[in-house]
Amino acid sequence: MKAISFIGLGAMGLPMARNLLARGFSVRGYDVRDAAMDAFARAGGQKSHSVKEVLSASEMAILMVVNAQQAEQVLFSEGGLEAMAPNGIVTIMATCPPAAVEALANRIKESGRRVLDAPVSGGMAGAEAASLTVMASGARETFEDARPVFEALGNKVFHVGTEPGQGATVKTVNQLLCGVHIAVVAEAFSFAAKLGIDLNVLLEILSGSSASSWMLKDRGPRMLLAEPDVTSAVDIFVKDLGIVLEAGRESKVAMPLSAIAYQMFATTSGRGDGAQDDSQVVRSYHLLNKA
Amino acid sequence: MKAISFIGLGAMGLPMARNLLARGFSVRGYDVRDAAMDAFARAGGQKSHSVKEVLSASEMAILMVVNAQQAEQVLFSEGGLEAMAPNGIVTIMATCPPAAVEALANRIKESGRRVLDAPVSGGMAGAEAASLTVMASGARETFEDARPVFEALGNKVFHVGTEPGQGATVKTVNQLLCGVHIAVVAEAFSFAAKLGIDLNVLLEILSGSSASSWMLKDRGPRMLLAEPDVTSAVDIFVKDLGIVLEAGRESKVAMPLSAIAYQMFATTSGRGDGAQDDSQVVRSYHLLNKA
Repeated sequence: MKAISFIGLGAMGLPMARNLLARGFSVRGYDVRDAAMDAFARAGGQKSHSVKEVLSASEMAILMVVNAQQAEQVLFSEGGLEAMAPNGIVTIMATCPPAAVEALANRIKESGRRVLDAPVSGGMAGAEAASLTVMASGARETFEDARPVFEALGNKVFHVGTEPGQGATVKTVNQLLCGVHIAVVAEAFSFAAKLGIDLNVLLEILSGSSASSWMLKDRGPRMLLAEPDVTSAVDIFVKDLGIVLEAGRESKVAMPLSAIAYQMFATTSGRGDGAQDDSQVVRSYHLLNKA
Repeated sequence: MKAISFIGLGAMGLPMARNLLARGFSVRGYDVRDAAMDAFARAGGQKSHSVKEVLSASEMAILMVVNAQQAEQVLFSEGGLEAMAPNGIVTIMATCPPAAVEALANRIKESGRRVLDAPVSGGMAGAEAASLTVMASGARETFEDARPVFEALGNKVFHVGTEPGQGATVKTVNQLLCGVHIAVVAEAFSFAAKLGIDLNVLLEILSGSSASSWMLKDRGPRMLLAEPDVTSAVDIFVKDLGIVLEAGRESKVAMPLSAIAYQMFATTSGRGDGAQDDSQVVRSYHLLNKA
């Protein structure tokens, strides 16, 4: 399994494809944006000009597209799936709702192809450093066939279950925690600002105390900046916490903290800050709690 | 400043007093419970039989009592403050509402004594290991006089402001994050359990991903046990998130995530689990979202 077809060369996909190239995989790539394709070609990738071309006779396809709708379009509307090798593996690595992944997986299996549901965590920094967490589900043998590919992309590779949809579920749980953790740091900072606490000292204290989280250390410093670089956008969490709540609705699960966090990201996007760094959810809290 | 008067030899106070003794401080102690006093005496402490006795001519008093009401009682109702040396330092290390600490501090200053507001974070494990975070406020010179004492108790000692109440505020922000972090792990686990995910695998994944927090790693394993040892009780977070919301009400600050987390701890206590380990807030989520 040394030849990979890679669809979706965006903020995550491009560095992931680069890591595959750097580890000796031969990678054909496709993206609708020319700039992404050019960057991929500069890294040694082989450009394709359509979904059918990139997936032609492919034995291993990675979909790092934006959402389940794009995956559906690539595989079915644009004829990608039928172009693949009869026993090829479709690997869905985008963050999608578990139910949507299950539905896609069933259609892929009906065609005779194999499928892995393998979302990742770690963001752009993890994608660049090949230090992603991979949460894969699907048949054990298929997972083992794909393991060398996953190990080129991340350093924490897990097989979380034999059914497609379980990987997406674990990723959904991951995003639930990430989204609430970002929002609660914003809540804490706006409260502290109102009470006159120096937020730089506060951040230092909290980073070393039992109040710490990965997100506090990563997003906390960016919350103290008015216009930080965008590492991950507010709209990503509008989408991902939307998936959390959608999964909760389908299973009739109460998730009150997730619902509140979703609202804070949604209203931040609704005021026009959807493309800002997700740390800027703190703007909504500061608007509410202006000192 | 090598002689300390220590009031409140409970789960936190006793190991703290032991660390002072181990570092060569002479410590007089008082607690209403005989068992606590006996344990303190076995560690080399000098028992007192009343608040007035333990604070008699004291130049440095540490109050590690349960709440602001107990501090008020010790200092004023039982005559502790007037027993102290005229220039003595009262150090309030219990977790109290910022406004209550301010009010106590004003009364202490009126008597001519000095005051430090110095709550800690790190729990029983941090108290045992002398690795607490100390968040102290008060006059800089008073803080410097007390620094050797704080450094015997913790390894992260901060002077967060010159006004008593600011230390309590930082501790309040700390508890806001801790409480929400515990509750959101419970929310994530009950959601994942409903969807059939193996919680042990999930915990391993989340502990190494961007979803991680200090509380996830500490309380997460105990959430998977039916009857874990009690390291910190549910009722502690009913109290501490109550302080968070009280401070929010006084300053008219919106804290929607904290309010939800409070409700989950409160209802857990209301069902009779207040003395259980705080990880058992997950029981309320499992009741709601039974698989």
